[in-house]
Amino acid sequence: MSEPLPSWNAGPAKDAIIAFVEATCGGGSAEAVPVAERLAVFDNDGTLWCEKPMPIQLDFILRRLVAMAEADPDLRDRQPWKAAREQDYGWFGTVLAEHYAGDDTHVAALAGGVLAAFADISVDAFDAQAEAFLRSARHPSLGRGYLECAYAPMVELLGYLAEHGFSSYIASGGGRDFMRPISDETYGVPRESVIGSSTALAYTSDGSGGSITRKAAADYLDDGPEKPVHIWTRVGRRPLLAAGNSNGDIEMLDYSRHPDRPSLRLLVLHDDAEREFDYLGGAERALDRARQDDWTVVSIRNDWRTVF
Amino acid sequence: MSEPLPSWNAGPAKDAIIAFVEATCGGGSAEAVPVAERLAVFDNDGTLWCEKPMPIQLDFILRRLVAMAEADPDLRDRQPWKAAREQDYGWFGTVLAEHYAGDDTHVAALAGGVLAAFADISVDAFDAQAEAFLRSARHPSLGRGYLECAYAPMVELLGYLAEHGFSSYIASGGGRDFMRPISDETYGVPRESVIGSSTALAYTSDGSGGSITRKAAADYLDDGPEKPVHIWTRVGRRPLLAAGNSNGDIEMLDYSRHPDRPSLRLLVLHDDAEREFDYLGGAERALDRARQDDWTVVSIRNDWRTVF
Repeated sequence: MSEPLPSWNAGPAKDAIIAFVEATCGGGSAEAVPVAERLAVFDNDGTLWCEKPMPIQLDFILRRLVAMAEADPDLRDRQPWKAAREQDYGWFGTVLAEHYAGDDTHVAALAGGVLAAFADISVDAFDAQAEAFLRSARHPSLGRGYLECAYAPMVELLGYLAEHGFSSYIASGGGRDFMRPISDETYGVPRESVIGSSTALAYTSDGSGGSITRKAAADYLDDGPEKPVHIWTRVGRRPLLAAGNSNGDIEMLDYSRHPDRPSLRLLVLHDDAEREFDYLGGAERALDRARQDDWTVVSIRNDWRTVF
Repeated sequence: MSEPLPSWNAGPAKDAIIAFVEATCGGGSAEAVPVAERLAVFDNDGTLWCEKPMPIQLDFILRRLVAMAEADPDLRDRQPWKAAREQDYGWFGTVLAEHYAGDDTHVAALAGGVLAAFADISVDAFDAQAEAFLRSARHPSLGRGYLECAYAPMVELLGYLAEHGFSSYIASGGGRDFMRPISDETYGVPRESVIGSSTALAYTSDGSGGSITRKAAADYLDDGPEKPVHIWTRVGRRPLLAAGNSNGDIEMLDYSRHPDRPSLRLLVLHDDAEREFDYLGGAERALDRARQDDWTVVSIRNDWRTVF
């Protein structure tokens, strides 16, 4: 057997992962967990791929907002179209930072624009637009396409878990239907295993299959305590492994503590300004929890041999 | 090769199923459909198991309503506790018949009782209660336990589809979490592949994994145009095969018409008073559609060699 997880440096994070997987498979004195119960859940932005300088989906939305404002001058003085058109990314950053700090004053304006950006198109048309963007757009500073912004050690971890009988789901605060077109190719996670936020949808029959249309209203934001709820809704099981990187992942990580099974909580720490980014904003409470409890902190600087 | 689907009599329904499955697998001149796209969806009540004299879940709920009314005399004059305690099943039948005819006047009272019956307990406690009921309770007239009320030809069809690379989901108007504990054993459909109606849920952390609690409010009723929406939400694909038996399945069957893939719509017709039941109530529009379009009607009397 070759050494597992070659993209990971030797250290406590790699040790914890291997010990957990061996325990679920009946290594040592533990009883093997039935394969059907081997469930792992992963946040996406900042856990499986980059989220700086802005979440990838926000770039997708901003480009659409700019196009809307070019077509309709009335939108140019309204947020979020104004900020998008003027490339005032600070406005978006402030709104998101306020949200993670518990202040949703400006979230309504942002959400209104986000929901309007892709309203009244079919889920199939949205799927095609998201896929075209993800296959063509490039990260603004890392010198690579967005699909190459997935973290190699995490993709390797998903493969290692699959080899050991795990089913992995993506439980993201980002849009479910934004990730689906590329989840299998990028992560080995099929589209039915992507959980995430969604707009409200409606079905219309038309005699030839009908179509499902996106409405300009949120269905739910898959963040914080909604993450465990949507994991249950989709899978009907408590996960054994959860990986996240921000305050919005705390409840999902809490939920993965099993009364009578091995379990593991991973928190990715962005501490590598040279190879990726170095930031703690939006993750302060999560890091406190990791240090209080027995969560495993994954330091990008120390634990990953390669990042991409 | 032994003859497929031995519980099905020779005839147009069996022929249509076999021709469809062979076409998806590349038989004849057709190009094989990739395995990942081989999606089938099934209604549950009246399609995979009996729904007369009342849906099985209604029996589960009624027993709980009776127990609530025994414990709290104030409930005894309120619907639906009054009807449950007095075994006035006609009241429930009328409300459901009104609902299927488009009149929801009494649905609010029924829904209020149904939602209260299992409110404020964890999804794990509900799972255990549903499983205990389904393993012990018996059908009132068929002389068999509820778990033996699954239709053998449909279970055989699920197996036949699985052998040919299909993933099958249960898209039921009934409760998702009611079916999950027995879906794998009864149908070979794992719990993550059960779609269905749900109450609202909420997660609470407690330092040891936390729990997900059922609220006394509906999340959604997975019926009519909501069925295609929740199939997309869960799977992210248009099905190739849909099977139902009532007006609430029409949109799901419509949605399974594929622009460039083989597809099949099955409508189970309850026309066998001797071996099961003979009724058309709640399925009139669906049967009209089956006759207008190219849906395949499955006659229990003519197409099934055995029912259970």
